[in-house]
Amino acid sequence: MIKYPNGQKFIFTQKAHKKSAQDISFSSANRGISLEEDINLSNEYYLGAGALLITKRPTPIHVSKVDYSHGAKIVNAFFEKQSTTDYNGVYKSRYFDFEAKSTQLKTSFPLNNIYLHQINHLENVIAHGGIGFFIVEFSSLNEVFVIDAQTVIAAFHHGDRKSIPYAVFKENGVLVPLGFNPILDYLTAIKTLFNL
Amino acid sequence: MIKYPNGQKFIFTQKAHKKSAQDISFSSANRGISLEEDINLSNEYYLGAGALLITKRPTPIHVSKVDYSHGAKIVNAFFEKQSTTDYNGVYKSRYFDFEAKSTQLKTSFPLNNIYLHQINHLENVIAHGGIGFFIVEFSSLNEVFVIDAQTVIAAFHHGDRKSIPYAVFKENGVLVPLGFNPILDYLTAIKTLFNL
Repeated sequence: MIKYPNGQKFIFTQKAHKKSAQDISFSSANRGISLEEDINLSNEYYLGAGALLITKRPTPIHVSKVDYSHGAKIVNAFFEKQSTTDYNGVYKSRYFDFEAKSTQLKTSFPLNNIYLHQINHLENVIAHGGIGFFIVEFSSLNEVFVIDAQTVIAAFHHGDRKSIPYAVFKENGVLVPLGFNPILDYLTAIKTLFNL
Repeated sequence: MIKYPNGQKFIFTQKAHKKSAQDISFSSANRGISLEEDINLSNEYYLGAGALLITKRPTPIHVSKVDYSHGAKIVNAFFEKQSTTDYNGVYKSRYFDFEAKSTQLKTSFPLNNIYLHQINHLENVIAHGGIGFFIVEFSSLNEVFVIDAQTVIAAFHHGDRKSIPYAVFKENGVLVPLGFNPILDYLTAIKTLFNL
């Protein structure tokens, strides 16, 4: 019998593979989208509880052609890279801005899916007194950390470093409590990280 | 000879009508897009000057079908309404959130293109200590005002009022200085409006 370390049934795995042929949300981006869903649900909880207001920026799409024969139907367009970060909002009048990323690695967080314009944006956020951070999931470890954007910015600009060691998250980040409501209590972790 | 009250030449009107069949950015949304361009350019100026950091949320698009035969080409999608506002950002660590609207009317600002979910969002912004406002252009008068979101929220919830009189902007809003750099110096007006 084949062992599935995460306890998934085979039928689920089959469905997942079938889905991956049609849907880009599966494959390597799958963990990231799960993290995103967890964050979105946590944000809904925070909003309802009056604790925190965070909104997610829509994915930018470049529209090349629109067919107006039946309403406005977009018939040619493509996804663009987010020029800033995915999330921002307000906590007790303070501006929050963050990016969420997931890795399956256990020993480091690779920086190759963070872009220079996102780093520049977070540098501007900090310069204007905003609170910039990353939510980073080590999916194989089932651990989620918050870490000051300045730590990621410094690593990004460090010429010969392509990743941030897991140990840096243990030392400089704060572990996010996992639960039901909210699923990811990252606000509690942020309050600890930034002494809010 | 036919008189055009706005002084447009006929050739321009022809081109405009031709364009309007292909491009929804013309027609009634035209003035709003000019205001949007002016705000975007002003935001670039503010960013370069280190005065203010504002980002515009991308227009949300619902993607129904993607063709993966040559990369990821979106072949069926449609525009969605922005569920929040168009702009937010940070000024001296304070959270800013605003919507920009333009009207060709001279005596009032109609509320029919402001949506309940935008009002709810701005109510949340204020509840969390953020600074919420509208930038409203009276295009026929070449005047642009900033006005506290609470004024618009109150009018929106006022059962029998479908618009805000121009006089309210004169009394409770602040006129935005128009210039070259920035084109719309709305930050100066906001500092006056909110005593920042």
